[in-house]
Amino acid sequence: MQREIVTLTSDFGKQTQGIGNMEAVIYSINPEAKVIHLMHGIPAFDIFTAARTMETVYYMPVGFHVCVVDPGVGTGRKGIIVKAKRGDYFIGPDNGCLLTAPHLLGGIERAFKISNEKYMIKPVSPIFHGRHVFAPVAAHLSLGVPIEEFGEELNPKSLVNAPYEEAKVQNGKVKATVININHFGSFHLNVLHEEFDKLGLNFGDKVSISFGGKKLVVPFAGTFGELPKGEPLIMKDDYRRVEVAINMGSFVDKYPVKVGDKVTLEAV
Amino acid sequence: MQREIVTLTSDFGKQTQGIGNMEAVIYSINPEAKVIHLMHGIPAFDIFTAARTMETVYYMPVGFHVCVVDPGVGTGRKGIIVKAKRGDYFIGPDNGCLLTAPHLLGGIERAFKISNEKYMIKPVSPIFHGRHVFAPVAAHLSLGVPIEEFGEELNPKSLVNAPYEEAKVQNGKVKATVININHFGSFHLNVLHEEFDKLGLNFGDKVSISFGGKKLVVPFAGTFGELPKGEPLIMKDDYRRVEVAINMGSFVDKYPVKVGDKVTLEAV
Amino acid sequence: MQREIVTLTSDFGKQTQGIGNMEAVIYSINPEAKVIHLMHGIPAFDIFTAARTMETVYYMPVGFHVCVVDPGVGTGRKGIIVKAKRGDYFIGPDNGCLLTAPHLLGGIERAFKISNEKYMIKPVSPIFHGRHVFAPVAAHLSLGVPIEEFGEELNPKSLVNAPYEEAKVQNGKVKATVININHFGSFHLNVLHEEFDKLGLNFGDKVSISFGGKKLVVPFAGTFGELPKGEPLIMKDDYRRVEVAINMGSFVDKYPVKVGDKVTLEAV
Repeated sequence: MQREIVTLTSDFGKQTQGIGNMEAVIYSINPEAKVIHLMHGIPAFDIFTAARTMETVYYMPVGFHVCVVDPGVGTGRKGIIVKAKRGDYFIGPDNGCLLTAPHLLGGIERAFKISNEKYMIKPVSPIFHGRHVFAPVAAHLSLGVPIEEFGEELNPKSLVNAPYEEAKVQNGKVKATVININHFGSFHLNVLHEEFDKLGLNFGDKVSISFGGKKLVVPFAGTFGELPKGEPLIMKDDYRRVEVAINMGSFVDKYPVKVGDKVTLEAV
Repeated sequence: MQREIVTLTSDFGKQTQGIGNMEAVIYSINPEAKVIHLMHGIPAFDIFTAARTMETVYYMPVGFHVCVVDPGVGTGRKGIIVKAKRGDYFIGPDNGCLLTAPHLLGGIERAFKISNEKYMIKPVSPIFHGRHVFAPVAAHLSLGVPIEEFGEELNPKSLVNAPYEEAKVQNGKVKATVININHFGSFHLNVLHEEFDKLGLNFGDKVSISFGGKKLVVPFAGTFGELPKGEPLIMKDDYRRVEVAINMGSFVDKYPVKVGDKVTLEAV
Repeated sequence: MQREIVTLTSDFGKQTQGIGNMEAVIYSINPEAKVIHLMHGIPAFDIFTAARTMETVYYMPVGFHVCVVDPGVGTGRKGIIVKAKRGDYFIGPDNGCLLTAPHLLGGIERAFKISNEKYMIKPVSPIFHGRHVFAPVAAHLSLGVPIEEFGEELNPKSLVNAPYEEAKVQNGKVKATVININHFGSFHLNVLHEEFDKLGLNFGDKVSISFGGKKLVVPFAGTFGELPKGEPLIMKDDYRRVEVAINMGSFVDKYPVKVGDKVTLEAV
């Protein structure tokens, strides 16, 4: 038994008994696990935000990461384990939500279907695989059970696609996708810091942001506080992505942007 | 000292300092306890949802379960410990919220009044018994202090009634009560899976659901995903009860149902 | 390594990945720490509620308390450690949010600037000092690293002022400030129980409450339940302060009061 980190992410909302149930299941299998509730406020069934949230384990020690954003539960969708080259394991449904994080952790090393009932809680509920499949599988993995034990190996290319790819700069422009809207009303794009750097911007330079027929010109800043209160800005966020925000305000309350929307950035 | 599970449930909301205070109190008495926040999003003073939430410890290992949904705090209402036959202890106010869970765990074994001040934090706040009475009592119980130590034994029949009884099928109908509305907008009834089975339904069979002068006919399904998006259904939930839901939607946003309402189910 | 309590408070909302990130950082440095999420529902940038929330550690064992309510992150504002005479350490931005709690814990013993990069995660994000500075500093302090190691000592008088002082009774009146509005819609004042006692009130006595041009006369009660449902009252709260509430209702839904407002109390 090791003091391994096991994270739980879901769209259950923090105010629900399901997450405590999953935590208890993990402790009952590995009492020394450190369960961290990464985020349970994923909007219902939102695979984009789920995928982006899983990416944030980049800043954590290597661990075992469960994601239960699972609109297909009870249908034929597979349960899977994806191992990243850094050493992390991602456990959840095969709907793309587990695939963007390994991309930031050196790539996918291996992927397995979860089919061995020995590591499930039986009878398996048709509607709560988080408690009966994913949490116990993560707990057993954290005890050192080899990944091969849980089911057959899968070709990573056979998995359901991630909800977004990496946006790339071309001809001084980047066509990006909104992958997350945070608590403060800022939005985040599928553009990595190092890709954004290819626009060749310095702090204070202007960027045009086009979305839904609107165009806004905002400065590239190091942080919110460099702008007057209420002013929009673009910056590098705290999870390797690009963020559009309003200093001490909510961007999405002012402009109608939602997860999945297309946004084009261009230096001006 | 053992690594016992101590759960906390309340109507404080997760975003409040009270629950961290209770957790700290437990660690200060039993540093090896595993505190799990089961649910703090009980609607204010809602004894139905509190009772239903306590039932969900059925899927956890045996533990010590505190419930602080306590409109009567500071009045004469008793603080009590209820021991279930499975071995779990329920700690909280005598308002019925602790009584439905033991029913699913083999029945009530014994009940005690909490009166021994030795196990309270003094001076006892007249408004926050969660911190000064229930959390410390749970922590001491988790250390192995015998239940007799905390006060006089009570006849379980003398306790304030549970907010709901088990609904029973009669003449192919069941008159039930809404005991919970979840994060997704589905509602749950005081009907156990095995009682529901007495309606003799197969998947795909139709059920009429009558509430508030309305009647709806919906299919009995194994899970949400079997129905088209937006379609209502009835199914067995993930905590031994019957649930009425809309696939990828909110039932209660569409129909006016609230906790405590009466709902009649009948095969059609 | 000790099983020290490390608390986390922020305005991130519980439904965000940032708090799980901070928790993981702490475990990666001190695997034996007990991380408690004290409150993450501070309204965005609200230094009053942040300061009041930090006060509530009064009821916890001595610990290491991080507060990330930080509108000035990325600007020149200092990161600081404040040690209270009781033995607690407060870690966060120099904006006043850390200063009222030590006042309730015997006063400030010492204060230090955080400047030693050895105890930060590098590169330091310009927008998330919670993860890169405050959480790791708290974890290292909890391991026993001496406060002098983190940077130069500061004169406590040089720190940014607390958002509120202690209100005092003068001529049978107290001019107070609203420092917090809780989940139930009650508000709290910067008046300690012992200061309130100087009004010489007994339970049942009437108090006039003036705010925003309005005047209300309400009874002084021991707890909510002593009043009929829907009736306003004034009472001693559960964190050493004075609270104005409505029994089983929300005061602030009925009257327009917000954090920072001035309220005058007077015996009538």
